[in-house]
Amino acid sequence: MDRAIVDYTIEMRRYFHENPELSFKEFKTQEKILSELKSMGLNPVKIAGTGVYADIIGKNNGKTIGVRADIDALPVTENNSKTYRSKNEGVMHACGHDAHTAMVLGLSKLLVSEGKNFNGRIRVFFQPAEEAPPGGAVRMIEEGLLDGVDYVIGQHVDSQLPAGYIGYRSGPVSANSDTFFVTIQGKGGHGSRPEGGIDAIYAASLFVTSLQAVRARILPQTSPAAITVGTINGGYRHNVLADNVQLSGTVRTVTEEDRKSAEAKIKSLLEGLKSFLGISYEYKFEYGYPVMKNDLEITGIVHDEAVKIIGEKKVIETGQMLGGEDFGYYLQKKKGAFYRLGTSNRDKGIIASNHSPEFDIDEEALGPGVEVLNAISKRLLI
Amino acid sequence: MDRAIVDYTIEMRRYFHENPELSFKEFKTQEKILSELKSMGLNPVKIAGTGVYADIIGKNNGKTIGVRADIDALPVTENNSKTYRSKNEGVMHACGHDAHTAMVLGLSKLLVSEGKNFNGRIRVFFQPAEEAPPGGAVRMIEEGLLDGVDYVIGQHVDSQLPAGYIGYRSGPVSANSDTFFVTIQGKGGHGSRPEGGIDAIYAASLFVTSLQAVRARILPQTSPAAITVGTINGGYRHNVLADNVQLSGTVRTVTEEDRKSAEAKIKSLLEGLKSFLGISYEYKFEYGYPVMKNDLEITGIVHDEAVKIIGEKKVIETGQMLGGEDFGYYLQKKKGAFYRLGTSNRDKGIIASNHSPEFDIDEEALGPGVEVLNAISKRLLI
Amino acid sequence: MDRAIVDYTIEMRRYFHENPELSFKEFKTQEKILSELKSMGLNPVKIAGTGVYADIIGKNNGKTIGVRADIDALPVTENNSKTYRSKNEGVMHACGHDAHTAMVLGLSKLLVSEGKNFNGRIRVFFQPAEEAPPGGAVRMIEEGLLDGVDYVIGQHVDSQLPAGYIGYRSGPVSANSDTFFVTIQGKGGHGSRPEGGIDAIYAASLFVTSLQAVRARILPQTSPAAITVGTINGGYRHNVLADNVQLSGTVRTVTEEDRKSAEAKIKSLLEGLKSFLGISYEYKFEYGYPVMKNDLEITGIVHDEAVKIIGEKKVIETGQMLGGEDFGYYLQKKKGAFYRLGTSNRDKGIIASNHSPEFDIDEEALGPGVEVLNAISKRLLI
Amino acid sequence: MDRAIVDYTIEMRRYFHENPELSFKEFKTQEKILSELKSMGLNPVKIAGTGVYADIIGKNNGKTIGVRADIDALPVTENNSKTYRSKNEGVMHACGHDAHTAMVLGLSKLLVSEGKNFNGRIRVFFQPAEEAPPGGAVRMIEEGLLDGVDYVIGQHVDSQLPAGYIGYRSGPVSANSDTFFVTIQGKGGHGSRPEGGIDAIYAASLFVTSLQAVRARILPQTSPAAITVGTINGGYRHNVLADNVQLSGTVRTVTEEDRKSAEAKIKSLLEGLKSFLGISYEYKFEYGYPVMKNDLEITGIVHDEAVKIIGEKKVIETGQMLGGEDFGYYLQKKKGAFYRLGTSNRDKGIIASNHSPEFDIDEEALGPGVEVLNAISKRLLI
Repeated sequence: MDRAIVDYTIEMRRYFHENPELSFKEFKTQEKILSELKSMGLNPVKIAGTGVYADIIGKNNGKTIGVRADIDALPVTENNSKTYRSKNEGVMHACGHDAHTAMVLGLSKLLVSEGKNFNGRIRVFFQPAEEAPPGGAVRMIEEGLLDGVDYVIGQHVDSQLPAGYIGYRSGPVSANSDTFFVTIQGKGGHGSRPEGGIDAIYAASLFVTSLQAVRARILPQTSPAAITVGTINGGYRHNVLADNVQLSGTVRTVTEEDRKSAEAKIKSLLEGLKSFLGISYEYKFEYGYPVMKNDLEITGIVHDEAVKIIGEKKVIETGQMLGGEDFGYYLQKKKGAFYRLGTSNRDKGIIASNHSPEFDIDEEALGPGVEVLNAISKRLLI
Repeated sequence: MDRAIVDYTIEMRRYFHENPELSFKEFKTQEKILSELKSMGLNPVKIAGTGVYADIIGKNNGKTIGVRADIDALPVTENNSKTYRSKNEGVMHACGHDAHTAMVLGLSKLLVSEGKNFNGRIRVFFQPAEEAPPGGAVRMIEEGLLDGVDYVIGQHVDSQLPAGYIGYRSGPVSANSDTFFVTIQGKGGHGSRPEGGIDAIYAASLFVTSLQAVRARILPQTSPAAITVGTINGGYRHNVLADNVQLSGTVRTVTEEDRKSAEAKIKSLLEGLKSFLGISYEYKFEYGYPVMKNDLEITGIVHDEAVKIIGEKKVIETGQMLGGEDFGYYLQKKKGAFYRLGTSNRDKGIIASNHSPEFDIDEEALGPGVEVLNAISKRLLI
Repeated sequence: MDRAIVDYTIEMRRYFHENPELSFKEFKTQEKILSELKSMGLNPVKIAGTGVYADIIGKNNGKTIGVRADIDALPVTENNSKTYRSKNEGVMHACGHDAHTAMVLGLSKLLVSEGKNFNGRIRVFFQPAEEAPPGGAVRMIEEGLLDGVDYVIGQHVDSQLPAGYIGYRSGPVSANSDTFFVTIQGKGGHGSRPEGGIDAIYAASLFVTSLQAVRARILPQTSPAAITVGTINGGYRHNVLADNVQLSGTVRTVTEEDRKSAEAKIKSLLEGLKSFLGISYEYKFEYGYPVMKNDLEITGIVHDEAVKIIGEKKVIETGQMLGGEDFGYYLQKKKGAFYRLGTSNRDKGIIASNHSPEFDIDEEALGPGVEVLNAISKRLLI
Repeated sequence: MDRAIVDYTIEMRRYFHENPELSFKEFKTQEKILSELKSMGLNPVKIAGTGVYADIIGKNNGKTIGVRADIDALPVTENNSKTYRSKNEGVMHACGHDAHTAMVLGLSKLLVSEGKNFNGRIRVFFQPAEEAPPGGAVRMIEEGLLDGVDYVIGQHVDSQLPAGYIGYRSGPVSANSDTFFVTIQGKGGHGSRPEGGIDAIYAASLFVTSLQAVRARILPQTSPAAITVGTINGGYRHNVLADNVQLSGTVRTVTEEDRKSAEAKIKSLLEGLKSFLGISYEYKFEYGYPVMKNDLEITGIVHDEAVKIIGEKKVIETGQMLGGEDFGYYLQKKKGAFYRLGTSNRDKGIIASNHSPEFDIDEEALGPGVEVLNAISKRLLI
């Protein structure tokens, strides 16, 4: 691949890194993407508020491949002395969406510079608000992004993998990432007379301990799944009986059946506490990003094309994870695959995790990233 | 007091100790009591199957005082080399009812020998089956024992107190001693697939752990009360999901309100488990002996008379206990007091607890026991 | 009793009600008390910062009786339209210490006006900071208040009893009121990967549920005792594994043995969680006000004198309570009694609980309050 | 395939079904297998006590394929009116090992009758005691069965799949099936005085409820795993504090890391209970059959050959299961695959589960079963 494409991609990545914007507020980012695509001779279109897409049309009719970048940054204060550090204090591309955006622009430039030497169409799209559920993907789809698209491809930078590696996995690679909110209402009183009230802290604690059985007895023990209470808050003073505790948590599942089962069983548990202790409760279960299910065949293509470019040793099968990604919405509609591009480099000291204030990537991974996207897209068009 | 009374009491105690009989099977015991009372010139009457009572009538009209002995033994094999050890293998007066019977016979002999020198009437009664709920007291009362009785007195030997001591306490001195039986019905399956069934062992365990909150959150924290699960049994094999667990336990309370509250809350807990886990259950709560509530004034008399006989230092206030005694039924109907006669003697090696196979009493306590019974009865007749 | 004394007591109560001051900041209150006592011809002395005491010396030698008032108010905003409502916004005599102070001043005036017609000495004392542990009593004692005192008497207004009633109880009438603070330190991570961290919310919940067994299995089931977790707070976000939970609670016991046992067992429970889950923890157990143990004989005198003044029907035995009162410190040193003066009046709409913003008293109770204090003190001087 | 082979297989299956023998007591079974193999002109060898193996040697040198049958029956009383029902009352081929044995004999006959028309060697082996851990496979291996073997194949009848279907799965298809035994030792006493002892039933219940967190917090939430307590037994009488509870259970994992983690964490939990409650305990964790890990490539061959014989629609991917199979020991040593042969038939009323007294198979499945074994073995020899 032409070094100019690599340099362009790095340049773009740095531009976006310096100018991060929060979810659905990617105004300048959108402007930049539009201007870059136009300068390549493409006809980019605004979508989903701050999103963009553009079709790169080949020589003959054929399939349409969607290639996705997400473009938003996080409310993180960068702790980094790089020349290209964030100029927008308190906002940072700590999850690498700058790289995603840059690589899809790099892919666009590559395709155009090669003379669009393929059959069919490659639709590059730049989605806002991946970090903020309900996320930008839903809106992209509602506004028609996937119309006429055959397959979708997503590539994500990953600090768990060394730069130059590709991680792939068939089947479920994330989880249904749902949120629940519980309020337990007891009855206050003096701490020395619990019999005069209903102790909401005891009830909440029994909720948390019993919740373990939802995972360990009720969900299928062969299913990947996690239920975590992330926050618990209640009470006024050491000697006052708490009348109210607020809890919130996350439920991760990979099947719709498990998701529904968990939702229902948490409610059953709350009903049980009501029967036992006489509490009342509020319970809200909010559906978040759905599980990403990678297509077996397309994952095979990811694997094969990656091997051709970077060699068998650096293409590895990753484990099942229970994270959330709104690329799952695209995969509910179209066949496709979401895979990982290693970007850490121990020798260069680039080891910080995604989402941390020290996060950075080894830019040497960007060139291969563009090449792999290019190869997969072309192969899918055959 | 005449030494002959003491000797008689010891002789009687040894007779009964050698010839123990189980609850409601005190046939020879009844015969012996009848024969002894007749030989004193009294007119004993059979009651409650194997029970006896007799009235010792004073010179003038007056009140009627009931003095109770219980007469049954326990299914315990005596481990003891005394000459008077049990001749009825496997049955033993391990709770001292032999002494109770002997002392009330001793009292009868004393009253007769003194010429019934009092106003009113002393009704001595010998109750079967104190050790076997529902107990003999209920039947004694049903058959009219308490008709015309003004006050009731009960004296119990106690290995916790040294011989020659009296223990007294006003108000509640035992507990409502109720029993519950719970069967938890889940659904069987293979242990490797808990999701395919309903794990009765988990449900039963959650029952036991949550039951602690019935005591610690729901019953009044100032009330004496205890809830204990005494047995738990369930399951077939290490790798088979248990469909059924059986539990039994005891609930001890001192107020009717707490008793009802505990009964209802255990049911609420089971309902809660049903809502949460989908188990079904059976629940039986059986009322046992009621709390004994000693009358303040009569307890004062017990104290005062005991002090006169054995001196202030040896008359001590005992703690609240949560044991069960069917003397509680008499105290539901009549004012009275139940108090303790110390019978252990460290120097003589008489230290074993009531109900143990090594239990014995220091017979030197029997004389004072008769004297105190005599003094209290006379004082109540004034 | 002279109506002037009643009027004076009411006037004083209103003065203090209008001018409430927080614990250890009772500066004006102290001035007023000093000035009133001086105007009676007494020689009041400052003590414990904002406290006062004065000796009223009878005609002949004799015992010394300490009569206590507490003088501080609460950080409560009064919700009340009475003419004498608090002028110190946000501070209120919501626990009736205004009445306590006024009645002890009323008693002083009465004793002086009667010509100190008794043998011995009555030491009236006005203690700061009852509402704020470690409280003012400790300092009063340290500064010698109890030197030469034989018995102490405390009277507390009570919204649970109707005006004109006296509530008494022998033995323990409050509890050792101790506070514990627990921090559970786990290890953070993503909520979808609990295996990567140590879930502090689960650990804290297991702490709370298991704590019930400390009350229900380990402390004596016949002991009044309560353990309540009053606050629980931890976590950051629904999908983040919480690394830290803070809890605080109260432990109420009536024996030193139970207090020590509870303190130790909470630590054992935390050690257990450490062994099981690998958490670390901080644990602080702060001793608060000790149990008040009323002397049997002096409580009898309270009862008898109260009956003489207000009649048998209105003098009732109250239940054991597990509240905290720093009068317990005086009772650790001297024999005495703490009893309750009813001050609610349903007909007048005076029903709000102590400590509530609507709290008020029926001032008709103040006269009898002074009379009973007077009678008890005199009787103890005989 | 020749119908004679099918008829022979059915005849053999019925013979073994009528003459079931328990684990390591398969004496007649061994005799029958030896005699059948000899009558085919083979040289069978006794191994592992009651096991047998024989090599069927092809025309040229090549690989060696091991084909396994297990031969033991279960202590189940057959509830079935078939002509070939068990003649050995109380023992039954309720798991289909009769069919396994018959099909491997059928395969042998087929290979011989075809003239051993292949390169290399097919080692048929008949293993005792699959149903009774530690199982017969360990001994077969110890005695050299796998020497010179390249791949191993196992086929199991399955009532969950219709007759004529094959179920396959790559990777883990069973679980490490370990057993634990726990004794919790508390201290007895009276049920009304839990403070006088250590309640082993409470401790055991807290063990069971807390164990859920080992699955739900500590093991990887993406790992298939199950922990079940299968039996719990303790206590003497409803009102006696239990001093001892016995528990047993199963732990199912698919990685060695999870297995070790579960083993260690159960111990940590018991240590935690010791710290908290002062119990002592015994804990035994017995390693059972290891997870079967099917080789990806060989599973592909199973799939492909099965498709050729019975068509794509009837060859289905099965779910991960957490059962135990001692074929796992062979797969620890050699590459291979273990797959399932459907044998239920709703139309014929053959629906009972493996291990039930009504279990039966549709014998129409036996022919295809032999054919698939044949095809896979031949393919692996190429």
